[in-house]
Amino acid sequence: MTVRVAVNGFGTIGKRVADAVAKQPDMKLVGVAKTRPSFEARLATDRGYPLFVGGAGKLEEFRAAGLSVAGTADEMFQNADVIVDATPDKVGREYLAKYQSAHLKAIFQGGEKPDVAEVSFSALANYDAARGKSRVRVVSCNTTGIVRAAAVLRARYGVDRWDATLIRRAADPTETRKGPVNGILPTFQFPSHHTPDAQTIFPDLPIATTAVVVPTTLMHVHVNHVRLRRPPASAADVIAAFRETPRFHVFHSWERIEGTPQVLEYARDHAAPRSDMMKNVLWEDGVHLNGADLHFFQAIHQESIVVPENIDAIRAMFDLAADASASIAVTDLTLGLRA
Amino acid sequence: MTVRVAVNGFGTIGKRVADAVAKQPDMKLVGVAKTRPSFEARLATDRGYPLFVGGAGKLEEFRAAGLSVAGTADEMFQNADVIVDATPDKVGREYLAKYQSAHLKAIFQGGEKPDVAEVSFSALANYDAARGKSRVRVVSCNTTGIVRAAAVLRARYGVDRWDATLIRRAADPTETRKGPVNGILPTFQFPSHHTPDAQTIFPDLPIATTAVVVPTTLMHVHVNHVRLRRPPASAADVIAAFRETPRFHVFHSWERIEGTPQVLEYARDHAAPRSDMMKNVLWEDGVHLNGADLHFFQAIHQESIVVPENIDAIRAMFDLAADASASIAVTDLTLGLRA
Amino acid sequence: MTVRVAVNGFGTIGKRVADAVAKQPDMKLVGVAKTRPSFEARLATDRGYPLFVGGAGKLEEFRAAGLSVAGTADEMFQNADVIVDATPDKVGREYLAKYQSAHLKAIFQGGEKPDVAEVSFSALANYDAARGKSRVRVVSCNTTGIVRAAAVLRARYGVDRWDATLIRRAADPTETRKGPVNGILPTFQFPSHHTPDAQTIFPDLPIATTAVVVPTTLMHVHVNHVRLRRPPASAADVIAAFRETPRFHVFHSWERIEGTPQVLEYARDHAAPRSDMMKNVLWEDGVHLNGADLHFFQAIHQESIVVPENIDAIRAMFDLAADASASIAVTDLTLGLRA
Amino acid sequence: MTVRVAVNGFGTIGKRVADAVAKQPDMKLVGVAKTRPSFEARLATDRGYPLFVGGAGKLEEFRAAGLSVAGTADEMFQNADVIVDATPDKVGREYLAKYQSAHLKAIFQGGEKPDVAEVSFSALANYDAARGKSRVRVVSCNTTGIVRAAAVLRARYGVDRWDATLIRRAADPTETRKGPVNGILPTFQFPSHHTPDAQTIFPDLPIATTAVVVPTTLMHVHVNHVRLRRPPASAADVIAAFRETPRFHVFHSWERIEGTPQVLEYARDHAAPRSDMMKNVLWEDGVHLNGADLHFFQAIHQESIVVPENIDAIRAMFDLAADASASIAVTDLTLGLRA
Repeated sequence: MTVRVAVNGFGTIGKRVADAVAKQPDMKLVGVAKTRPSFEARLATDRGYPLFVGGAGKLEEFRAAGLSVAGTADEMFQNADVIVDATPDKVGREYLAKYQSAHLKAIFQGGEKPDVAEVSFSALANYDAARGKSRVRVVSCNTTGIVRAAAVLRARYGVDRWDATLIRRAADPTETRKGPVNGILPTFQFPSHHTPDAQTIFPDLPIATTAVVVPTTLMHVHVNHVRLRRPPASAADVIAAFRETPRFHVFHSWERIEGTPQVLEYARDHAAPRSDMMKNVLWEDGVHLNGADLHFFQAIHQESIVVPENIDAIRAMFDLAADASASIAVTDLTLGLRA
Repeated sequence: MTVRVAVNGFGTIGKRVADAVAKQPDMKLVGVAKTRPSFEARLATDRGYPLFVGGAGKLEEFRAAGLSVAGTADEMFQNADVIVDATPDKVGREYLAKYQSAHLKAIFQGGEKPDVAEVSFSALANYDAARGKSRVRVVSCNTTGIVRAAAVLRARYGVDRWDATLIRRAADPTETRKGPVNGILPTFQFPSHHTPDAQTIFPDLPIATTAVVVPTTLMHVHVNHVRLRRPPASAADVIAAFRETPRFHVFHSWERIEGTPQVLEYARDHAAPRSDMMKNVLWEDGVHLNGADLHFFQAIHQESIVVPENIDAIRAMFDLAADASASIAVTDLTLGLRA
Repeated sequence: MTVRVAVNGFGTIGKRVADAVAKQPDMKLVGVAKTRPSFEARLATDRGYPLFVGGAGKLEEFRAAGLSVAGTADEMFQNADVIVDATPDKVGREYLAKYQSAHLKAIFQGGEKPDVAEVSFSALANYDAARGKSRVRVVSCNTTGIVRAAAVLRARYGVDRWDATLIRRAADPTETRKGPVNGILPTFQFPSHHTPDAQTIFPDLPIATTAVVVPTTLMHVHVNHVRLRRPPASAADVIAAFRETPRFHVFHSWERIEGTPQVLEYARDHAAPRSDMMKNVLWEDGVHLNGADLHFFQAIHQESIVVPENIDAIRAMFDLAADASASIAVTDLTLGLRA
Repeated sequence: MTVRVAVNGFGTIGKRVADAVAKQPDMKLVGVAKTRPSFEARLATDRGYPLFVGGAGKLEEFRAAGLSVAGTADEMFQNADVIVDATPDKVGREYLAKYQSAHLKAIFQGGEKPDVAEVSFSALANYDAARGKSRVRVVSCNTTGIVRAAAVLRARYGVDRWDATLIRRAADPTETRKGPVNGILPTFQFPSHHTPDAQTIFPDLPIATTAVVVPTTLMHVHVNHVRLRRPPASAADVIAAFRETPRFHVFHSWERIEGTPQVLEYARDHAAPRSDMMKNVLWEDGVHLNGADLHFFQAIHQESIVVPENIDAIRAMFDLAADASASIAVTDLTLGLRA
């Protein structure tokens, strides 16, 4: 079976998911929808993706730009089995009724509230929960980072308590209107919204997240302190556990990856699409174990980390793979994540 | 005569103008208006400024914060001879009819279009043009910086042509929602709006301004190339001319003022109110003269440079001083700009 | 008794300590030493502080800049009872022998290792330990922030465990050569050096600190999670405890202090010298108590927080005050910290 | 003939030049030299480039990291016809004697002074001047940007005068120790060093460059004002001229490329190696012609713009192509610059 996928919204997440769908052997990208002409709209046509005018977009504007348009988003929906909604935060919900009335399955992103979907999703954690579902929500970038790590630590060692400080990037590289330019902004809500979001997937995860925003565009960094129930002998065991798990990359000490700029330089050097880093990034030097107390840093690439999760969500919803491992294996192979 | 001044809006500009008014021997601050409680609203009451609730503000919110409120902005207007409008860009115009129907004189800031007032103003350039007027607009920070320098150069040397590249700060320090965080944004309009704005004061000024936005909060920097009509013998003459003029500060080479951070450090060290720098800032090392071609850098402190101009505008509108020099002398003495 | 104080090094810390010494009723500033002419050297002479040429500085350079010099640092040392060493990190130790051979008491900053002095110091925590001592080290800005908070929490509630993530500013405002410009840099050493540094003062403090560096110049922010031994009834109790203690400032919710930029704007508005914030800064909204688990943010102004500590250290070394409270009261009154 | 190329230094420039050499039909990459193990050293071995230990590097360190090393840089030199020196600024000159004694041709980067080589080089401007030479210097990134534009404008319209303000990025993305974090730093030398550097290639170019440094990592932006001798009818002609010339990219208005972040996003989207932009970047909206006065912005990607120039320099030195056009055609085809 080949699932016909349409992507509504062709910005930071949408364009990446579209590229990823186009690489899957069991999926077909039937189109992408965008509301105005731009270099990103042109990218769609350059790639041969059918381009549809979404939202309140105007066909004339696309024509004036010389962009070939295949129709309206409504028309796109008719040819799809599933929509990946990658519209801006809160807009996805506005489309919910439309997707439902068109009897379309739909995937929402983490900017929507959990009740927009039947289940919140992260492939390493609860693939099976999304099997056959009609509406699935892929949790946000920070939550994906937490839940992936939780999947490893819970299964192997048990988690008694987890404190995480999320040092969030202020804006994506092209979000040039967002700040701050200079300063640190605490998030006063405690725990931050990432805690209940992670608990949509692991309801009993004993985590408390705190968040601050800092003036950088590259990646988030999580500072984690986890009290393990059945601690291993050494930090090396933990490092090995992460290395054995898909969607984790642990840098060696001698690689001299000082921080997030070097992480993305590594991605650039290795010809990752868009210089993205879709894996959770850890450092050997940044994993410390003292008795049951595990401290580790992880860096999360906000632009791309949820992309493979969207692909696996599609596969689960249409039961295209035998299990999570099988889906992840295909996704990671096609996206170049198995190096 | 003591002019009764009210300040509508108590943010970056309003709070500075209020402080400056409070220091003038010929003015009385009758109140400031703010729309919501905040640390800045508290500052007004700490200073003993009558605090009025402006715009759509709610009295209950102020009371809940324990702030003592003197009434509504409308009540404030009744006790004033002149309003300094320091509301956000474009909001001043909305107040125009109200000020007029109350027979109040009014000063607007550079964020409003020129036709909001009878005349656009900068004290060194056209003090007399504002004498007796009812509505005066103080030009914006960048334009003030240009016009001050133009006042010096035109009178002494004549200006045949002027190219200015304005390297603009992205946001004020507390505008934490504004970016960009990383990147340079050209302003494609050419010349930038600063050219016609400067020409509201010097209609024949042969200037062409170009603007870019960069990720800093401290000051703008202007890169100027002026072709002089009657060039002096050396850059030293130009430096002397600026040093002799009020509202210019020229740093010595040995002071090691590398850029805008050191300029504001100088202001901090010298106990300038709010660590502000209300003068145009130049560097000896940054003034070069080759024949008729003058190149110079100037740094412009966007938060404070228009403050003394607002004071002089009041004085001109009520004819409180014999001439520009007399007004500037009082303003600069009271604001600590005569060091 | 009036203690004669000399300050060796007149940069970020030195100039602030000199200003603070000059305000003390029981101290006399006999001079400051600087190695090269600059706007900061000029500040010394503007303030009437005897200016001495320090380190490898050259008298001619000062003369060429028109700066009046009182002699060499060695001459300055002869007229002092105590030196506040505010030279760059690691340079203080190089002076140690010189101070000792001149039979001078000396205060070192936190950039030196603890063994440079007889005792490490923070006024709220161990004032008495510095009484009569000859060599005292004031702990660094981040450590001072931690130790002050520890002094409050230990005494009132007991501390069973403390995790702190220190989000460090990349550079001071005028350290224009330091980065990063864009990116987050974890400190891989765990615990970070702040843990043993805090334990120089509270040896049994069960704290584990983690540090990251982010691209801002304004303040550090600490994200704290403290397990209290004898927890109070509510967060309001903790807030009250901090408010009752000198050198803490807790912002109200309605003040809308979103982050470090607004904290320093508050200092600017209130005419704090150099717009400094010498107190630990907390937010009502940023203090949460769940059972014994206390979470709170605090912001630390790296440029100024140690200044009052240096003053109290002098007072302790010469036994100028009856006890810590008496010293702190004088220091805070003279520095404007009692508002 | 296949020229054997070795690259000394495998950082920002070296790794890009190595990749580019490896793609040329008439060149063979015989090795790269690096002084210490790192993720970049590993990249060399991952790509199959023979890795040599350069400078004061230690073989043991590479072995400890599990990196396979082919020998020392001296050994690498023996198998090469030409060295591309991509060592840090000023280090290239230290190697000069070694290259000469080994009878090796050598290419230096713009961080070295012009007299390190027989000729300074930029392919569009003076390809023939490098034919058969033994030592060639590729001018720096900013100078390359200027000289490319000069090659277009001189030939077509003549240049009577050119003012350029260079708004320089503070640091490359991975230069995490460099600042400033917040502030604008003027370069007081006038004209800046880019003027004489451009004149190493066009000795009579009537340009005057001014430079400032701003806190961004992405790209430089040049603000240009050129007085043309034989101006065309409209800005559209100029835009067409740039579009017809290799190594220029002019964005359309409707593409909504607001600034340097979107330029690099375009490169990311189009799978440019390392998300680089090796062309001068202009904007239709940012080209203005008024009579003979041409104003235009161009963005210069400091990390990659000189890469094709290094390739063409090799080709000229060994006379591998009929002329500049022929060399550029091959270079641009292999590097993906002909889209």
